[in-house]
Amino acid sequence: MESRPQVISSQERFSGRVFRVRTDDVVFDDGATARLDIVEHPGSYAVIATPSKNMLVLVKQYRHAVGRELWEIPAGTAEPGESVEAGALRELAEETGYRAGASQIIGSFYVTPGFCDEIMHFVHADRLAAGESSPDEDERIVVQNFTIDEMQKLVRDGKIADAKTLIALMWLHASRE
Amino acid sequence: MESRPQVISSQERFSGRVFRVRTDDVVFDDGATARLDIVEHPGSYAVIATPSKNMLVLVKQYRHAVGRELWEIPAGTAEPGESVEAGALRELAEETGYRAGASQIIGSFYVTPGFCDEIMHFVHADRLAAGESSPDEDERIVVQNFTIDEMQKLVRDGKIADAKTLIALMWLHASRE
Repeated sequence: MESRPQVISSQERFSGRVFRVRTDDVVFDDGATARLDIVEHPGSYAVIATPSKNMLVLVKQYRHAVGRELWEIPAGTAEPGESVEAGALRELAEETGYRAGASQIIGSFYVTPGFCDEIMHFVHADRLAAGESSPDEDERIVVQNFTIDEMQKLVRDGKIADAKTLIALMWLHASRE
Repeated sequence: MESRPQVISSQERFSGRVFRVRTDDVVFDDGATARLDIVEHPGSYAVIATPSKNMLVLVKQYRHAVGRELWEIPAGTAEPGESVEAGALRELAEETGYRAGASQIIGSFYVTPGFCDEIMHFVHADRLAAGESSPDEDERIVVQNFTIDEMQKLVRDGKIADAKTLIALMWLHASRE
């Protein structure tokens, strides 16, 4: 049996462009109560784009939340009414210019389920053709392709430092012959 | 050169038990402006605890943010004045009862740097000795050890569905002989 608590009250605390925050008062089967703050996020796409075997397309951008530049796989926020693959390939094209001739959903994972409902869909994009990018106005992006060895060095140097890009690198490493 | 924007104004929008939210108005070098909502989080620990070779300790709990039970590696929020290894082993002991005779920091990764400053420290805990657990009052936790094969089945069945546990599984898979 799941010990799913009952929600006694729920209140919106913040509503922004990307996410919202609500506070729930809950009661468990045994009568214990808790107040839980939840970040509501529309979900996101992370694109494992392989320009050739054992290589990934990465983007470098300044991340204001963490106060530094990072090399990451292309990613973005889900939009309403869009399929996972279409959304992922839209983000890839916007950020890098690459169009993918083939794509496949690898899996979908909660990023931080302790306080946030964001689910991130990982999509493998293959058979890439270069084209024009069209980043959002607050995105300043450098695009470059890296080998597994080069990315492992970026991890050691702290220039790759986020969970989704680590997952992409481990996935590529496990996939190679 | 980093295109680090200047912060024109910053306002706290929410302050809860685990995280806060602020909104920054920023201006880039080229004069473009943006309004960015940031979740401020104290950081967290994720514990890759190996009771024997090719096995992990997982905990099952109901995650209110995502509305379901998940099997995850032990994890928790950083506390002030605590070293990474001490904090990780504290969380492991609280959630599972296991005390570790050896530990090592594997790496530290931003969970979702697009809007949140949370950094998650991965710690390998080894030479485990069973003991009493002491979960927080709002934690209802089942503890169990799994092989790599069993965990891969849990991933396929959607019962392991979060990024940190996927990273732990891939790390363990890559580490085995």
